[in-house]
Amino acid sequence: MTGGAMSAAEASSNITAHYRVRAGADSIEDRARKIAVEQSVEMPLAGVRDPAILAEIVGKVRAIFDAGGGYFDVTVELCARTVGRDAGQLLNILFGNTSMHDDISLEDAEIPPALLAAFGGPNHGLDGLRELAEAKRRAMTCSALKPQGMSSRQLADLAFEFAKGGADFIKDDHGLANQDYSPFEERVAACARAMREAFRITGRLTHYVPSLWGDFEEIDRGLDFAAGEGLSVAMLAPAIIGASNFVALKRKHPRFCFFAHPSFTGGARISPPLYAKLYRLFGADAVIFATFGGRFGYSQATCRAIADASREPLGELPPAAPVPAGGLTLRRVAETLDFYGEDTMLLIGGDLLLAEHDKLADETRAFVRAVETYSFG
Amino acid sequence: MTGGAMSAAEASSNITAHYRVRAGADSIEDRARKIAVEQSVEMPLAGVRDPAILAEIVGKVRAIFDAGGGYFDVTVELCARTVGRDAGQLLNILFGNTSMHDDISLEDAEIPPALLAAFGGPNHGLDGLRELAEAKRRAMTCSALKPQGMSSRQLADLAFEFAKGGADFIKDDHGLANQDYSPFEERVAACARAMREAFRITGRLTHYVPSLWGDFEEIDRGLDFAAGEGLSVAMLAPAIIGASNFVALKRKHPRFCFFAHPSFTGGARISPPLYAKLYRLFGADAVIFATFGGRFGYSQATCRAIADASREPLGELPPAAPVPAGGLTLRRVAETLDFYGEDTMLLIGGDLLLAEHDKLADETRAFVRAVETYSFG
Repeated sequence: MTGGAMSAAEASSNITAHYRVRAGADSIEDRARKIAVEQSVEMPLAGVRDPAILAEIVGKVRAIFDAGGGYFDVTVELCARTVGRDAGQLLNILFGNTSMHDDISLEDAEIPPALLAAFGGPNHGLDGLRELAEAKRRAMTCSALKPQGMSSRQLADLAFEFAKGGADFIKDDHGLANQDYSPFEERVAACARAMREAFRITGRLTHYVPSLWGDFEEIDRGLDFAAGEGLSVAMLAPAIIGASNFVALKRKHPRFCFFAHPSFTGGARISPPLYAKLYRLFGADAVIFATFGGRFGYSQATCRAIADASREPLGELPPAAPVPAGGLTLRRVAETLDFYGEDTMLLIGGDLLLAEHDKLADETRAFVRAVETYSFG
Repeated sequence: MTGGAMSAAEASSNITAHYRVRAGADSIEDRARKIAVEQSVEMPLAGVRDPAILAEIVGKVRAIFDAGGGYFDVTVELCARTVGRDAGQLLNILFGNTSMHDDISLEDAEIPPALLAAFGGPNHGLDGLRELAEAKRRAMTCSALKPQGMSSRQLADLAFEFAKGGADFIKDDHGLANQDYSPFEERVAACARAMREAFRITGRLTHYVPSLWGDFEEIDRGLDFAAGEGLSVAMLAPAIIGASNFVALKRKHPRFCFFAHPSFTGGARISPPLYAKLYRLFGADAVIFATFGGRFGYSQATCRAIADASREPLGELPPAAPVPAGGLTLRRVAETLDFYGEDTMLLIGGDLLLAEHDKLADETRAFVRAVETYSFG
């Protein structure tokens, strides 16, 4: 187990965490120091007797900036050795106890190269998804199977229509787990079969992306089952299954691409762009997020930052595909592509499902055509 | 894998979720309906064509109450069948996508008997911890090993002093994972040995509670290693390792008692008492939380509700021990026992560590004596 520990030499460069804190100008310096202590040694410094621990392990306040309106941006340096090589422990060090204060949010974090390399990022990333989709120079398309409550057979029928319409990917609704009305293995087998049947008609393979469920071993078995059905992409919610487990599952299933679903991330206390960066770091090939103008309240600036966090250079990690979603409509395809560019996967679920069943393939085809024929600048 | 699915008959009773929403009086009804849809079928209802799904699966708004100040309490009934038997999926259904809206918090949830039985709660609970501590009619005591950055040997020396002082439990700081300065197995072996050595002096066994780290398989191995060292209690942070994994680990290690640490729970979007209830449901024998008057801002009312959620009748589940912590001091023992009563474990870490090393056992003894001699009403 000590194989997971990181030597002092490897962790020569530290983590920089950026917090936004609601505080008075007269108290912010003290508050910032308390954050740095809480996220490192978590005890009164008067009780820390080892000078090496005071010098190296205790968090250091590096900057305090008045952001206006009673808010301050506080930059804290945290020792990378406190993380080891554990993704869950990275979250613990960034925001563990401090998350319990309601006057603070975690806005960003810079991860040193050794930790970037230790977690390693996506198995395949944006380019791997492009290869699966045979989409070299265009945005990719995705739709979603819902509502839950339908039988596996009904969901497979839906998947068949989406596939006839030519979508690159079809994901389960993230509410689909292992319910009695569509148990995981039955659903995965039925939808995978629907993909093969549609392929015989269209000559174009749509990738079905099942929503994984359960504990680590159940997810592990779920991935084996999906692989046995010829699938190579799956979806999970890292905030629900745990970051360390996500990293381990990504490693154990190197052939798979993973869609990260934002369920349970919250939207007010940890910035969505940081979640996108962390999910990519842990292994997301595609990062689903709530785009502006839909059912969620994210601004264009937030969405831009999420897309950047998914794709911009980050150590040696491959870029991940940003997947704007959450109320996207056919009518908004051009606007969305204008905004995100071609290194993107558009996810339209509910809007397509408003069509009658016998129009679904046509609606999907219209979505696919809108993306494929869109011309970038 | 279909063994995890729940039959319709079992799930005859549903989940009731209580949200607090910031909204205008003219928009709250619409907003409440949208929450019920988001947390169930997550698509426009016009696209849901199966009357059985509309009747059973779609969430139902059961009450809207004006809480004043621009806030409303919204009660939503969610179909228990959508959960299956998966703890992560319970979180997904309660707050998955809705967590991304910043105008809403999850305040409480009533879990139907079938789901209570499915998750099963603590392996041993409050009474099991009392047996370990040989504490029949008094509150229990706990201290914490920190700061991280110390070697395993130094941490074991500290543990030895706490044990000489007679603490019932000594937990790792939750920042201790598998770092190079105190790797998990080395640390656990050293601290377990220190407990045995102190036992020879005091004739009273203090229980060392290691902080688990890593992915599911690493935690699983960590528990096996701890068991091999004669330990039977361990700590984890369910918000970091994932609820489904917690349930699976609790089942796989039925001899163990688990301390649930509140790291990464946030304090503003999911109510701390609900976390206490859920952690107990998933398997916490002891629920650590930030008590009033310490480093965190929880009110007395919140702390009362956390203690109640840990101990009050909940289906057939054993009660868990509430563990007030987060800046507790020796001076506040009586006040804390007045408030929580004897079915409690007091956790004092940093305040004891302010003592010089050669006074640590005495300080601990004073803490232990204060708890043991406290007289309840």
